[in-house]
Amino acid sequence: MISKILVNIGLPDEIKTANIGSLLHGCLMEWLPEETVSFLHQYSTYSPLKQRLLLNDKKVQWEIVVFNDILFNQIEQTLTLRKSFRLHYNQKEITIEKIEIQQLAIEELVKKYFSMQEVPRYARLNIQSPTSFKSNGQYDIFPDLKKIFRSIMRNTDTFFPEYRLFDGDTLEYLVSKTKIVNYQLRSTKFHLEGIKIPSFQGNFTVQLNGPLPVKQLSYFLLTFGQWTGIGVKTSLGMGKYFLE
Amino acid sequence: MISKILVNIGLPDEIKTANIGSLLHGCLMEWLPEETVSFLHQYSTYSPLKQRLLLNDKKVQWEIVVFNDILFNQIEQTLTLRKSFRLHYNQKEITIEKIEIQQLAIEELVKKYFSMQEVPRYARLNIQSPTSFKSNGQYDIFPDLKKIFRSIMRNTDTFFPEYRLFDGDTLEYLVSKTKIVNYQLRSTKFHLEGIKIPSFQGNFTVQLNGPLPVKQLSYFLLTFGQWTGIGVKTSLGMGKYFLE
Repeated sequence: MISKILVNIGLPDEIKTANIGSLLHGCLMEWLPEETVSFLHQYSTYSPLKQRLLLNDKKVQWEIVVFNDILFNQIEQTLTLRKSFRLHYNQKEITIEKIEIQQLAIEELVKKYFSMQEVPRYARLNIQSPTSFKSNGQYDIFPDLKKIFRSIMRNTDTFFPEYRLFDGDTLEYLVSKTKIVNYQLRSTKFHLEGIKIPSFQGNFTVQLNGPLPVKQLSYFLLTFGQWTGIGVKTSLGMGKYFLE
Repeated sequence: MISKILVNIGLPDEIKTANIGSLLHGCLMEWLPEETVSFLHQYSTYSPLKQRLLLNDKKVQWEIVVFNDILFNQIEQTLTLRKSFRLHYNQKEITIEKIEIQQLAIEELVKKYFSMQEVPRYARLNIQSPTSFKSNGQYDIFPDLKKIFRSIMRNTDTFFPEYRLFDGDTLEYLVSKTKIVNYQLRSTKFHLEGIKIPSFQGNFTVQLNGPLPVKQLSYFLLTFGQWTGIGVKTSLGMGKYFLE
C-alpha cells in the first residue's frame, strides 16, 4: 500500500523553508520504536519512508509517504497522539492542526496507467523541494531524464518488487523517447546537518513520445515519482515534485 | 582585429525583442556589396559577422561584431550613411541615434589573458539573447560547458587561425576542470523566418579549476565568447552573453 499522511502544521515564519525536512525526519525517528528506526537505517537511498515540507501560499503541510503498512500504522499512531511538538534544533513549537490520510494500492495504479488508451503528450513537473542527483561523487544540479526515470524505477522495485521495472535497455529506450522541452529552473541549496547540498528548483515539461506502452510506462513513472520523490535524500525532504 | 560597432537605435516598442535579429541581419545584407554577401554566405556556422540586439532597460543597442577588417570598413560606411532605415517585414522605421566603435587586437587579448597570475575562481555568464546548441539534429536547451568551449574555440580558430585553440583532448581536460555551480535559466524560442528555435536565457556561474594555464585558457575563452557568441545562429542574433 502507498500511504500518504498530510499533516497541516503551524510553523513559525522564520523556519518556513523546505530545509527543515531533516529536522522533521529527526522528530519522527525519536517517536518511532527503536527496532523501526534500525530497520529504516539499513536503507540509504531507497527508504520506504519519504517526507517533505510543502509550502503552498499560506498553508504549510508536512507530507509523509510510506511504502510499508506496519511503518504507516506506527507513524499514524505517533502523530495522532500529539497536538504539537518541538524541534530540538531551535526549540520552536510546531502545532499539528489536521491530519489527512490518503491510501492507494499499487495494483490500482498499475492497472489504471497501463490501460490508458491516450497518454498526455506532455507532463509538467513542478519541483517543490530542492532536488539533486549524485554521480561520480558530485551533485548534478540539472534535471536529467535518465537519472529521474532510474530513480523512480529503483524506488518502485524496492517497495514493490513484484513489478520489476528497472532494466538498463528499457531505461535507455525510455530516455530516447522522452525530452525536456520547456523549463524555468534555478539552482539552490538544501541545508542538511550543517552541509549545503547543491540542488535545483522550478519546473520543466517532458514530452512523451514512442509507442503507447512506452508512453504508458513514462507517464506511470512520472506519476509514481510524485510519491517517491526523485534523486538524493528523499527521506529528508529533497526531491519532491507534483505534476501540474 | 576584433571590431565592435554599437549602434544606439530607436525601435518601436512592439518589436523590442531579440527576435528581430534576423531582420536586422537582412538589412545589412541588402546594404553590403554583392561580393561581400556571397563571401559571407559561404560561412554557415562560423561567420566573421556576428550581430544581435541588446535590450538593456531603456537603451536599445544593435551590436555588430566583425572579425574581418574589410567587412568592418564596409559595415561602418553603410551605417554612417544612414539616419534611419526600415525593416521590410513590417515597414517599421528604425532611427540610428549614435554609433560607437570599439577595436581590439586579438594579440593584446591573448597577451593579457595568458599572462594573468590570478584568474577569477568564478565567471558568471549573463545570457542576453536566446542561446541554443544543435547536436544529432536536435536543439539542446541546457547550457553545456563542452559545447560552449568548443563553440568559442572553433570560432577563434576560424578568425585567428594562427592560434589553433581547438583540440579534442584540451577540450576534454578543460571540461573536467570547469563546472556550472549556480544558475537561473528558462527555455525560450528564437523566431527566425517563420520557425521558432528552442533556446534558453538567464544566467549561470562557471567555477574554474585546474592549473594556472588551464584557468587562463578557460577564462580567455569565456571572455572571447562575449564577442563571438555561443551556439547556433550567432550571426542572426542568438547566443550573446556578457560576463558579469
